[in-house]
Amino acid sequence: MSRWVCLTHPMNIMQIGIDSFVETPLGSGRAPGELGAERVHQLLEEIELADRVGIDVYGIGEHHREEYIASSPAVLLAAAAARTQNIHLTSAVTVLSSDDPVRVFQDFATLDLISNGRAEIIVGRGSFIESYPLFGYDTKFYDELFAEKLDLLLKLRDQPRVEWEGKHRPSLTGQGVWPRPLQPKLPIRLGAGGTPASFVRAGMLGLPLTVAIIGGEPHRFRPLVDLYREAGRRAGHAPESLDVALHGIGFLADTTQEAADILWPAYSTTFTRIGRERGWPPATRAAFDAQRSEDGAFFVGDPETVARKMHSVSDALGGVSRITLMMSGGPLPHAKMLHAIELLGTGVGQRVQPPAQTIGEK
Amino acid sequence: MSRWVCLTHPMNIMQIGIDSFVETPLGSGRAPGELGAERVHQLLEEIELADRVGIDVYGIGEHHREEYIASSPAVLLAAAAARTQNIHLTSAVTVLSSDDPVRVFQDFATLDLISNGRAEIIVGRGSFIESYPLFGYDTKFYDELFAEKLDLLLKLRDQPRVEWEGKHRPSLTGQGVWPRPLQPKLPIRLGAGGTPASFVRAGMLGLPLTVAIIGGEPHRFRPLVDLYREAGRRAGHAPESLDVALHGIGFLADTTQEAADILWPAYSTTFTRIGRERGWPPATRAAFDAQRSEDGAFFVGDPETVARKMHSVSDALGGVSRITLMMSGGPLPHAKMLHAIELLGTGVGQRVQPPAQTIGEK
Repeated sequence: MSRWVCLTHPMNIMQIGIDSFVETPLGSGRAPGELGAERVHQLLEEIELADRVGIDVYGIGEHHREEYIASSPAVLLAAAAARTQNIHLTSAVTVLSSDDPVRVFQDFATLDLISNGRAEIIVGRGSFIESYPLFGYDTKFYDELFAEKLDLLLKLRDQPRVEWEGKHRPSLTGQGVWPRPLQPKLPIRLGAGGTPASFVRAGMLGLPLTVAIIGGEPHRFRPLVDLYREAGRRAGHAPESLDVALHGIGFLADTTQEAADILWPAYSTTFTRIGRERGWPPATRAAFDAQRSEDGAFFVGDPETVARKMHSVSDALGGVSRITLMMSGGPLPHAKMLHAIELLGTGVGQRVQPPAQTIGEK
Repeated sequence: MSRWVCLTHPMNIMQIGIDSFVETPLGSGRAPGELGAERVHQLLEEIELADRVGIDVYGIGEHHREEYIASSPAVLLAAAAARTQNIHLTSAVTVLSSDDPVRVFQDFATLDLISNGRAEIIVGRGSFIESYPLFGYDTKFYDELFAEKLDLLLKLRDQPRVEWEGKHRPSLTGQGVWPRPLQPKLPIRLGAGGTPASFVRAGMLGLPLTVAIIGGEPHRFRPLVDLYREAGRRAGHAPESLDVALHGIGFLADTTQEAADILWPAYSTTFTRIGRERGWPPATRAAFDAQRSEDGAFFVGDPETVARKMHSVSDALGGVSRITLMMSGGPLPHAKMLHAIELLGTGVGQRVQPPAQTIGEK
């Protein structure tokens, strides 16, 4: 069997992961709690399988919307931690701007203890903005809130007793924040969409970066990634401490056609609904299929197709250390999702993470 | 074998439970994260055993202190939910005054989905006050904060979209709070120490009550319990909707002497340390042993002794539906704790929850 390796970064063995907002169908007539419990049990089954088939990381994105059961990522991830052995567990993202860094640190430090050091946090300003009015924040301070709270979160990671003063969160005067995590430095990544300032911020802070590319041509993000690396270099961070991961949309099945046909209905329902709120045109199958082409953003297909796409997108961005796939966008049949997870772990994993002796084989 | 039943309330079959603050030893020289991970794994083993031996409920009390790994009860309980089948999982207590009712509801609704409807919340104002300055609240508003936040939490339990205005939390204007729990009415109890107004509040709201009695003579709490029932009656709540549970200190071993000897060092260390902060005299073994007497507050002994004490305290308070034991107060040897849990489930359970046909047998 042929194996692909990243040509420009031959030693760059990619981690692979899955991200979810824990979609649940609306309008079925069943009680929301019943649907929710069923969906959460499916989610745990999905994460357990992902762990068994060697997927590196599972992320849950904080949302405060009826169709997503994901307002408390750390609580869901704790349940997953209790049933898994190796997979890393992360928020993707924690909407830090509308949260309290102390509570976030406590939740994920606790998760780190439960999971034996497998917890991570990806912080962001959020793509949806429901959380701002819900927790009493003004989107007028969208960026200032994030900058200030990230500063506190990073300080709490370094030490339990912090003196800190800000505009949007009560001061700390050296009180202890407990518990401490198992990992000496709890991994914190910065999640960015397309705002250049976010890439510069991550670089200046020397934080690992997760770029969300959910449409368009990935190579167009290269200047932003370069901006991150350059900002990091100028701030004095070693090149190897600057790390780029990618969050994208993807799905797998035995054939590429089947993968596309399974994903399309869930994708179109969700993006048409969200599009109504944001003034996008309705999703079309033609535009969806175009995203599956070599230059498009989607990782949809059989394992070979998805692995090849991962390498080409990684190359286009100058090398990424991790690609995590949002495998739904909307509710999908559970059995199809389980099969997709299995293919991602067993079929894609061996193609993007070749054993050391096969690196370079082609 | 003789069985005890509650003489004045023969049909009152008590639930039994365990409460923990997840104590961890300090000053061992080991990294806090390593100690914490070890302790959390012991905790999960303890809850799994409690589930297997038929204990009804496990509670984790929110604390923000170095010696307790319990700043995020819902995260710990979610891990326990993923590994258990029947045991109910509750905070004991959630310090609601310094928390956000929206986040609390979201965390425990998520826990309810994970656990298939086994989540509960016990809300309180907190015995320790570290959380107030940590989250920017003034203890000057100790009671007002609690009253206001409890009002919002109860509204969120009734419906996902709430209009609400208060002094200590930003307004809600009908935004949805998700997810909804599996239980149509997520159980919320009010935890009270000795403040009469708390008993009246619980009665007026028609909320089930958990009384913490960690010292002194339990029968002295009878007037407060009567105050609760009377306030409930006057507010128009049916007597059967008014429910009293008890949180106490206890420990079990094969012999009563052994149970006392195991608990004493952990108890004395903790209560002497806390006493220094609160101006109490150091704990003495004589005072500790006095609490084990018939009129004292502790449930320490072999299963027969503990079951007898549970019935006598229940009688003294006019009948309680549930007794949960804080089985440590400080770090205890894990094997001894597991044995105590087994004795509580298998030895005490059959004595306070006799099968229907044996009720009245003596």
